[in-house]
Amino acid sequence: MSTHLRHLITLQNMDASTIQHLLNRAESLREACAHGTRRIELLRGRTVLNLFFEPSTRTRTSFELAARRLGADVVNFDIAGSSTSKGETLLDTLHTLEAMHLDALIVRHRESGTPEFLVHHAASAVCVVNAGDGNHAHPTQGLLDALTIRQHRPNFNLLTVTICGDVLHSRVARSDVHALQALGARAIRLCGPRALLPDPSEFPGCTLHEDFDDAVEGSDVIIMLRLQKERMIATLLPDEAAYFERYGLTQERLRRSASGALVLHPGPINRGIEIASEVADGTQSRILEQVANGVFVRMAVLAELLAR
Amino acid sequence: MSTHLRHLITLQNMDASTIQHLLNRAESLREACAHGTRRIELLRGRTVLNLFFEPSTRTRTSFELAARRLGADVVNFDIAGSSTSKGETLLDTLHTLEAMHLDALIVRHRESGTPEFLVHHAASAVCVVNAGDGNHAHPTQGLLDALTIRQHRPNFNLLTVTICGDVLHSRVARSDVHALQALGARAIRLCGPRALLPDPSEFPGCTLHEDFDDAVEGSDVIIMLRLQKERMIATLLPDEAAYFERYGLTQERLRRSASGALVLHPGPINRGIEIASEVADGTQSRILEQVANGVFVRMAVLAELLAR
Amino acid sequence: MSTHLRHLITLQNMDASTIQHLLNRAESLREACAHGTRRIELLRGRTVLNLFFEPSTRTRTSFELAARRLGADVVNFDIAGSSTSKGETLLDTLHTLEAMHLDALIVRHRESGTPEFLVHHAASAVCVVNAGDGNHAHPTQGLLDALTIRQHRPNFNLLTVTICGDVLHSRVARSDVHALQALGARAIRLCGPRALLPDPSEFPGCTLHEDFDDAVEGSDVIIMLRLQKERMIATLLPDEAAYFERYGLTQERLRRSASGALVLHPGPINRGIEIASEVADGTQSRILEQVANGVFVRMAVLAELLAR
Repeated sequence: MSTHLRHLITLQNMDASTIQHLLNRAESLREACAHGTRRIELLRGRTVLNLFFEPSTRTRTSFELAARRLGADVVNFDIAGSSTSKGETLLDTLHTLEAMHLDALIVRHRESGTPEFLVHHAASAVCVVNAGDGNHAHPTQGLLDALTIRQHRPNFNLLTVTICGDVLHSRVARSDVHALQALGARAIRLCGPRALLPDPSEFPGCTLHEDFDDAVEGSDVIIMLRLQKERMIATLLPDEAAYFERYGLTQERLRRSASGALVLHPGPINRGIEIASEVADGTQSRILEQVANGVFVRMAVLAELLAR
Repeated sequence: MSTHLRHLITLQNMDASTIQHLLNRAESLREACAHGTRRIELLRGRTVLNLFFEPSTRTRTSFELAARRLGADVVNFDIAGSSTSKGETLLDTLHTLEAMHLDALIVRHRESGTPEFLVHHAASAVCVVNAGDGNHAHPTQGLLDALTIRQHRPNFNLLTVTICGDVLHSRVARSDVHALQALGARAIRLCGPRALLPDPSEFPGCTLHEDFDDAVEGSDVIIMLRLQKERMIATLLPDEAAYFERYGLTQERLRRSASGALVLHPGPINRGIEIASEVADGTQSRILEQVANGVFVRMAVLAELLAR
Repeated sequence: MSTHLRHLITLQNMDASTIQHLLNRAESLREACAHGTRRIELLRGRTVLNLFFEPSTRTRTSFELAARRLGADVVNFDIAGSSTSKGETLLDTLHTLEAMHLDALIVRHRESGTPEFLVHHAASAVCVVNAGDGNHAHPTQGLLDALTIRQHRPNFNLLTVTICGDVLHSRVARSDVHALQALGARAIRLCGPRALLPDPSEFPGCTLHEDFDDAVEGSDVIIMLRLQKERMIATLLPDEAAYFERYGLTQERLRRSASGALVLHPGPINRGIEIASEVADGTQSRILEQVANGVFVRMAVLAELLAR
């Protein structure tokens, strides 16, 4: 492994070998778990703290399971009842937690840049793992999506990938693009209503599409993004039916893609808004594989950061 | 053991030998714990998830302690902050959790039938344990009540049991009746205000009583149910004092029962509403024994489902 | 050790040898942890329950980490979702939890005397640890403050200590005074606005001060208390700026103290209200050492109570 990974903040500028190494480690852990190795004691005695400023039971649980399956202790720091709600600054919270001798801090925050801010101000050897910050990055999601794709399509340089939905505000889209570009994906198409498409300069090498039928044409992988209901107005597609009509992944649209194209979604899915139930539950859906891979990818990241 | 227990949804139609087997296992675990076996590693490496859609700290804690004392990892899935509150369907939640490789799902839900629904749609080998669903069933409560009674009165066929309160809406009453009938209780009397008594056809072999003094007469076991304050109006007993007057278990009423009759209550108790403090705290009260047995019964159930 | 410690409710009347013994044990644990002993299995199989009626994520997390690092299982009993909010009495909650065979109960409650009440009514061998009750006591805070001071100034009989802020309502101040007096501190000055100073008869041997400049003069240790915003009105100092002007610890005021005086604060700090940022983050601040010592002191207390 070329890069010395101390924290995981973003996949931007991460090289292919580092990503492949993490994915390989996730695969090894998956196999170890499948062969009855019920619990790996790699992180025994280590303490991992979930610091979620935005609620996300799914992601928090995935990290919690990952850490526990490596033998670590996990503490959930409940922000709602904490002194941060009494006005303590983020840095005071950081330094207080560090003083308690934590090995890793899993951070989710609505403001982009928060995990990096914590890294810059950390006074100890604590490892920071970004579990999603604003529109910026969600690196473990990017890795688990890459792992899921690799399990079916190991040659990234043959792949056309379409990411559809609210790309503009999506940290998932950003981390996916970073992973896919590093791994050499042939083409990445970003698709959505004009108001939800990013500035093209942010995504060199990607193409932007307002017409989902065009974008899906010949795609090998289609990553659907969750539509936040509050974004609906901005799209000029005033209701869910109208959005689904233009940007929902239906069985019919899926037929335009390459044969056996993979369907991904970070979850939780909005059935009938961004994806048809028959597609979400269909044979091409990899959504539950993504969830399973999420635990293994997070185990790999924690093992990499804490057990080197 | 005749029946192969894969899930625990209800005690209805469970045969006596299965119930006795579970109670025996609970007793063995109780003895193991009493003799200083501080932690049994039977479920080491297994993951149990508490999925409580209705809050119940007591029952959740009892399951959590049971699972931990068998060496399992326990994750509390906080529904309030979860994507189910963002509109994810119950099945999507189920399949997402299954994809994370859980061994058991402890489910509480306000709608009857939810645990069975999960069993029918589970895609993995996950075991579902019903921790209370609507008015339908609360099987571990039925088992712990049976265990508590058996510790004092092992011959069920000699017993007259009175269950008093809001029988109509009580999953505890239903699971108690199922357990008691399977174990051969001689007589079961269901007592409460008319509006809170069930249709007699639902409880063949039980007698219905509006007069608590009559019902308690000669009873060997009296199970008091918790009165939900919101049911008060339906009873035509418009206030707590009036309810207590007619359906509260007082020392005076208790004297009508068989000598040394056992007093049970699933908790938390409403003192002065369904039970007098002197009875709740009296020598015939088995309420705290029920709590203690609850942990052992839940250990037995988890061991039975997960460590066969 | 002279006194047989069964519970930890208050430091009042605790003798110096008991306190020194606990501080020594905390130091030993600190060294064990520093030398790579990642986890001490002293309390393996024991169950510790956090029973916090007042929210405090920091203190709860500190206790949780302490218990886990000794190998105990920790259960967080969430009062908000519990039957205590359905009207169950405190004693019923106590006895229910005891029936589940807990080894220790960590209690925080807004009413003074609650932990002692629980001790008097406990039916089992459960150990009660006071994590803060009303204005009464916060003994682990007193111990961790004493430990922090001792690490820098082991001769308490040479020390002048000033405690500044809302002394009247502060359980921290009370436990600090009890520890410091037992350990032989030469002088203790209590300082704050008149409305927030206690009756002098409650603190024999301490002096009361309204003028912070006078109080800080020559002090070796300055313990700043957190100002609850709701107390502001009572102080006749109607806003934060006015409070800070008279009772905030600034670099300028700090210069009046003895050379190298230690600055302590129980946290979370209100920057610019009771303490200037440059002091909180300055070289004389021991605030983060207090947090670190908090975990070791709580480990020592749990070890002392549960592993004797």
